[in-house]
Amino acid sequence: MSGLLDQIQSTEDLKRLKKQELIRLSREVRQFLLRSVSKTGGHLASNLGVVELTIALEYCFHLPQDKIVWDVGHQSYVHKILTGRKERFDSLRQLDGISGFPKPKESPCDAFATGHSSTSISVAFGMAKARDLLGENYAVAAVIGDGSMTGGLAYEAMNHAGRENTNLMVILNDNQMSIDTNVGAMSKHLNHLRISERYQSVKESVRQLSKVPVIGKPTVQVLEKVKDSAKSILLESGVLFEEMGFRYIGPIDGHDIETLIEVISQAKKLKGPVLIHVKTVKGKGYPPAEQRPWDFHGVSAFDIKTGKTLHKSDKPDYSAVFGRKLVSLAEKNEKIVAITAAMAGGTGLSLFQKKFPSRFFDVAIAEQHGVTFAAGLASQGVIPVFAVYSTFLQRGYDQLVHDVCLSNLHVVFAIDRAGVVGADGETHQGVFDLSYLSHLPNMTVLSPKNAWELEEMLAYAVEKCSGPVALRYPRGVASEAFPLAKAALEYGKAEVICHGEKVALLAEGHMLEAVEKAAELLREDGFLPTVVNMRFIKPLDTTLLRHLAQENMKIFTIEDNVRAGGFGAKVLEYYADAGLFADVTNLAFPDHFIEQGTQAQLFSRYGLDAEGIFCSVKKKMGDTHD
Amino acid sequence: MSGLLDQIQSTEDLKRLKKQELIRLSREVRQFLLRSVSKTGGHLASNLGVVELTIALEYCFHLPQDKIVWDVGHQSYVHKILTGRKERFDSLRQLDGISGFPKPKESPCDAFATGHSSTSISVAFGMAKARDLLGENYAVAAVIGDGSMTGGLAYEAMNHAGRENTNLMVILNDNQMSIDTNVGAMSKHLNHLRISERYQSVKESVRQLSKVPVIGKPTVQVLEKVKDSAKSILLESGVLFEEMGFRYIGPIDGHDIETLIEVISQAKKLKGPVLIHVKTVKGKGYPPAEQRPWDFHGVSAFDIKTGKTLHKSDKPDYSAVFGRKLVSLAEKNEKIVAITAAMAGGTGLSLFQKKFPSRFFDVAIAEQHGVTFAAGLASQGVIPVFAVYSTFLQRGYDQLVHDVCLSNLHVVFAIDRAGVVGADGETHQGVFDLSYLSHLPNMTVLSPKNAWELEEMLAYAVEKCSGPVALRYPRGVASEAFPLAKAALEYGKAEVICHGEKVALLAEGHMLEAVEKAAELLREDGFLPTVVNMRFIKPLDTTLLRHLAQENMKIFTIEDNVRAGGFGAKVLEYYADAGLFADVTNLAFPDHFIEQGTQAQLFSRYGLDAEGIFCSVKKKMGDTHD
Repeated sequence: MSGLLDQIQSTEDLKRLKKQELIRLSREVRQFLLRSVSKTGGHLASNLGVVELTIALEYCFHLPQDKIVWDVGHQSYVHKILTGRKERFDSLRQLDGISGFPKPKESPCDAFATGHSSTSISVAFGMAKARDLLGENYAVAAVIGDGSMTGGLAYEAMNHAGRENTNLMVILNDNQMSIDTNVGAMSKHLNHLRISERYQSVKESVRQLSKVPVIGKPTVQVLEKVKDSAKSILLESGVLFEEMGFRYIGPIDGHDIETLIEVISQAKKLKGPVLIHVKTVKGKGYPPAEQRPWDFHGVSAFDIKTGKTLHKSDKPDYSAVFGRKLVSLAEKNEKIVAITAAMAGGTGLSLFQKKFPSRFFDVAIAEQHGVTFAAGLASQGVIPVFAVYSTFLQRGYDQLVHDVCLSNLHVVFAIDRAGVVGADGETHQGVFDLSYLSHLPNMTVLSPKNAWELEEMLAYAVEKCSGPVALRYPRGVASEAFPLAKAALEYGKAEVICHGEKVALLAEGHMLEAVEKAAELLREDGFLPTVVNMRFIKPLDTTLLRHLAQENMKIFTIEDNVRAGGFGAKVLEYYADAGLFADVTNLAFPDHFIEQGTQAQLFSRYGLDAEGIFCSVKKKMGDTHD
Repeated sequence: MSGLLDQIQSTEDLKRLKKQELIRLSREVRQFLLRSVSKTGGHLASNLGVVELTIALEYCFHLPQDKIVWDVGHQSYVHKILTGRKERFDSLRQLDGISGFPKPKESPCDAFATGHSSTSISVAFGMAKARDLLGENYAVAAVIGDGSMTGGLAYEAMNHAGRENTNLMVILNDNQMSIDTNVGAMSKHLNHLRISERYQSVKESVRQLSKVPVIGKPTVQVLEKVKDSAKSILLESGVLFEEMGFRYIGPIDGHDIETLIEVISQAKKLKGPVLIHVKTVKGKGYPPAEQRPWDFHGVSAFDIKTGKTLHKSDKPDYSAVFGRKLVSLAEKNEKIVAITAAMAGGTGLSLFQKKFPSRFFDVAIAEQHGVTFAAGLASQGVIPVFAVYSTFLQRGYDQLVHDVCLSNLHVVFAIDRAGVVGADGETHQGVFDLSYLSHLPNMTVLSPKNAWELEEMLAYAVEKCSGPVALRYPRGVASEAFPLAKAALEYGKAEVICHGEKVALLAEGHMLEAVEKAAELLREDGFLPTVVNMRFIKPLDTTLLRHLAQENMKIFTIEDNVRAGGFGAKVLEYYADAGLFADVTNLAFPDHFIEQGTQAQLFSRYGLDAEGIFCSVKKKMGDTHD
């Protein structure tokens, strides 16, 4: 390994290497990736798939002057390794370590922060327009996976960029899957292209391109001729993209560095928007990941030889608990259907998919459609359960308002990864959902304290409710705490875990565990707090709240969400609206984006672990000693 | 007019008419529309354009059993007239009158409530899937304009429906414009189709279709043959839709009832998803509207003979004030660019568009892309101002979080139609933006009290701020009240209009006018309220708030937004966070969707006019007489 990779600190270093050395470099990068990610965990398969593409692209580009926007961004490890961050890779995705996603604050070579899908073409087109407006001169590329192309945002951006003659390169990294297997008509279209017989003639078409004098109009004219006469690959195979206004080049073998460099350097000189269709293999070069790319999408530490995860927990996580319960409910009720946005595995729906294929809908990375499609289903008497990560449901906000809540339709949102999620960091923390859900008319919002309650709430939401229900639960192992607290669910009613005096701790969902531990510390200190599992964030248990105020309790709300507009804020709103005085302290995440780190580290850093809650209560009680 | 129309109370009545009578009926409907809308105001041009299409569709469909989903929905007047609501048309868009949009609670023939763009294919596909799952048998059609097809949601739905063999009819109502002239690559594609020579052969292709035995697989096979051998219109001209998995038929003359009926009734029998491309003329049959369809999109009462608006206000509205000020700022600063999502006219950007065409971007109905495109521009030093209606920006919520706020980019959101908008009703009330904006880290939220302050704030947002800024202002004539209150803007500082005692009235934006009137009533009653123009909803003026609490003021917050998560809630959050006791009452819209009515009627109904505010204060002061 004391090789080429150690010489690369910037993209300029790449340019000194010969083609053969670049191939050697790609092997070294792959080995580095494998050794590093097998220790830290992270996104492996997607990064193994873009080694050659990244090297070729950064060989042709000058960073940070030229801009590369990585869609989603979890495939930016190779880019990070090549731009001076190799030495810090052991801190990948850890508290205060380097991010698993592009972050401009980490390096000027990271042109834009990403994390969610389908944003890159909009961003890159914006950059390209800014460049032209300000009279500057640099290249802009968006690198986007075929999965991300199913998102409406990518289409909107293509639709805009395709009618302007702005220089913009879109590299379609086609590995035939998003997180799960890719679906949809767009994917079918790409399949047509992939099996096109013209695949072999790419080099030929590149050769033609390179003969063309590359200056403005004449180029276009000559290319038009190539199109018309030879019916070259540029026109024929990328018909959908050509109709969208992009020049289409491809498909290219994404592991052939030499061809990639030829194509990218030529395409860089073309005028207007160009789409380069690159075929890559997810997990390339590491057999276990090539064979089971979905298992190596996001991994924890693993053994390189066997490909097996180290320290695997035997305990089911919340997603698995949800998935199993939904199957058991669906066995009894044929009206239940499940929806995912390309996340069957992540959301625990794989079993449902297998058991009820005709009642399972993978809408692709298309959360907006997922929500509105559910509304359509519900309007005719089907009961859709849309399992979706908290941070991705953000993309369906308008559809929640306009298509589900307005018509008061019975759609159940199983909101996974609610609250902080850990290593994925800022873009993936599900800390806004209570704020964007709880001001929606007709919406019921539920948070379970543990695995048992998640099951109960799911059954309740599906069988007993009639309007929209959002059921939020966190990432991670499903808690089995509070085995005795099994009061039946009642609409709008909280569960009082223990009655006390002077202090009431109101916990949102799984925060109850830390709250109960804090209560334990308080008891050791002579306090006797009331501990409540709120269950319903909307509507709140106003009878209980009224009672607590009347008892002059000092009230603490504890939630896994930002403070603004969240659970605690709703408690304040209730008291103000009811004209009741109550002394309420809201413990929640503050008004900034929450960085990466383990969930435990983040709760600790923001005073939301048992110790932090205990200290907040003590401080308050000391402040107002009576 | 004592004619055929009076005999039509349901779609079944249509079926008794002969083809020639249907043509006569279309003339009667058009006359009725014109007479009625010229009195009440409403959406005229789009409804004149779909008279024949609606008659033909409802001739072929059985309502309410079959389902028609009207995208956006403001073109559903003809449908309403044909389904028993003709007599109530004089109450169109008025308080407690019939809605200008489909509303299932108004008629079972309105299959789904709409108002925003691009939702219909998702909804209709959901309905079709529900039908199949529940073993029912009815037809489902989405009627969607070419403008709506630019929305990513429509693409996501096409992508999903296109890979399933579910019976679904999508009628593309192609009038070559959304609210303003349509833009984008999709529109260019449609243009290819429109000018296709195959236009004349539609009837021929329908004849071919009707010869095909319409039962399952054989049909498909025969059609495949038709496709392959004759290279019929089905394949050739709708290549984009065919690639998306839809069978394409068109383009059809949308004013030829007979052909429409032939095509729709045949298409109804086809298996799988089918897209019928119908060409219509906006404003058809009323020359002033045909010539200037944009002026007759949404109209107030007008004179039929001249086409001129009655009772036109001379005073500029907030949109015009915004548009003019932006032009004057842009004259001095070349970095300023403007973005609209197909609303240049509505948002007041037409002048900017004319003056700075290269700095003006109409992204089409694509709010998601509008936000992220702005982020890309801002990341490279351009200053984008995205002018957008409050309720439509809901569709960019995730992009606000992920692409703008996370990177703390200097994008200015000029949020028009914030607060209740009046006659458009539930789907268009901009009463959620304070709730979905004010929990976003890095976001500054501003509300101006009047025209002067809107100008000041726009200049401030563009020239003085560095992160994202949301500037919200209402629909309607720009207020010129408070001509003397012209304190310079200071970050996070409110403007105290008058100092008083015991009671403080904190007004959000334009609500200050009603608040000042309420204060006047209170003064007559012996009170001496403090009156504050908050200016900054985020961050709040905490110095002022602290001061008010220390003075033991009874505090009232008044806002044009829902209570939950809004301005008042933020005030409560501040006091709780600061550990200060304050007696706060939040006056705002309650937790349900706000119906149609004039803005004045709605403020009055919800206690947000001067009288309502006065009563709330009096009640509170009486309750706690000291």
